[in-house]
Formats: sequence, structure tokens, C-alpha cells
Amino acid sequence: MERQPSGFLVKQRAFLKLYLITLIENNHLYGLKLRDLLKEEFRGLGYRPNHPEIYKALHDLIEQGILFQQKEKKQGTIYQEVVYYQFTEQGKEKAEAYKKQLKIELERCLKLLEKAIKDNF
Amino acid sequence: MERQPSGFLVKQRAFLKLYLITLIENNHLYGLKLRDLLKEEFRGLGYRPNHPEIYKALHDLIEQGILFQQKEKKQGTIYQEVVYYQFTEQGKEKAEAYKKQLKIELERCLKLLEKAIKDNF
Repeated sequence: MERQPSGFLVKQRAFLKLYLITLIENNHLYGLKLRDLLKEEFRGLGYRPNHPEIYKALHDLIEQGILFQQKEKKQGTIYQEVVYYQFTEQGKEKAEAYKKQLKIELERCLKLLEKAIKDNF
Repeated sequence: MERQPSGFLVKQRAFLKLYLITLIENNHLYGLKLRDLLKEEFRGLGYRPNHPEIYKALHDLIEQGILFQQKEKKQGTIYQEVVYYQFTEQGKEKAEAYKKQLKIELERCLKLLEKAIKDNF
């Protein structure tokens, strides 16, 4: 069961889902590669998402009917099969709607942080 | 036991502690008043901290030796006693150190959100 949302800052899960959608929009990527990209992406900002969080975000997107998994030969190999993530038929449209919602949420969070800096310093 | 920090965004508890310190620096306030102020402060930004979170933040500040509780007559009343929160002898110095740390943390979080907006939209 989901916790009652606090309305505080954006949840890590939603943040990762947003990045996963954008990564998969722009690249043909398999699970391990997605994970490695996300683990390095924010390193300079002190944030390193862990494996379970990344996989939960991917699985949420599958449950929402946005992505599906497909086993394919890894590009550049002959035998190695890996799991690629792709948009379902309605996935791109749903993903756009999700991104729109997240943009509003990220902007709200920015305002909350800016307010805190203004109010306390 | 504390969870391993994810390094994602600032925790709600730390955010509330920062506001509590600033409120108590600037005003002589009792618990219920602090709670009511915080519950209204962010309403326009969709965030309404709940009572347990606010009290946990206050109790953290007591455990850290920054604040102490003092029962006093409520200002403007004759009989009504309420619990005021005040800085301990070393409290102001500790509070300043905490605020300094939180400023760095809030600025890091701003960068993380700005990056997410830039990368995904």
C-alpha cells in the first residue's frame, strides 16, 4: 500500500521514472545499461540511486503500461541476450502525460527549496 | 536505526528542523503555535507537514542539545500553561552549524532539480 503522500518533495521513484522515460525515448537500452547510466548521472551531485530503486521504477513503468521488456541479442554480440525496455503502443502518449505532470511537480519543488533558502538565510 | 541515506533530496525532517530553528530564533513560540505556523507556511506550494513530523523534528533538536522545553504561562493569559521551545546555552552555536550544513544541502538539491528539468524537458 502506498503511503499517504506528504506533499513534500518529489519522490525518488518518480524522479527515476522520468529519467528512464527520457533515456528510453532517446536510446535503445537494456536494463543493465540503464542502471549503469543512472548510477553515474548524478554522481557530481552526491546522489547515487541504488539498484532496487531503479528496478522498481522500471517495473512501475511496465505496470502502468508504458514500457515492455523484450529479450534481444545484445548489440555487437552474437550470443548474449539482454532485456531491452521499449515503449508499448500507447506508451509514448502515456509517457508524455507523465512527463507533463512531473514538470509541474519539479517546478513546485524548486519553489519550495527556493523559499526555504530565502526564508532561512 | 537510520536508513542508509540515498543522497537524493533533503529529508523532510531536516527541512522542518531548519524552519523550526529560524522560527525560534526570531520569535518566542510555544509548540502548538510552531505547529500551526508550519502547517500554513507552505500551503500555496502543496505541502502541509503533519503533526508527527513536526514533533519529531522538535524532539530531534532537543536530543541534539539545541533546544529545551519550558512550561510557561501563555502570553496574554493568566492560567494557561504552554510549552515554549528555547535555545540551550550552546544551542545557538549548534543551530548555526546545522543551518550552514543545510544551506549546502538545499543548494545541492536545487541543482539536482534544475538538472532534471534541463535533462528531461
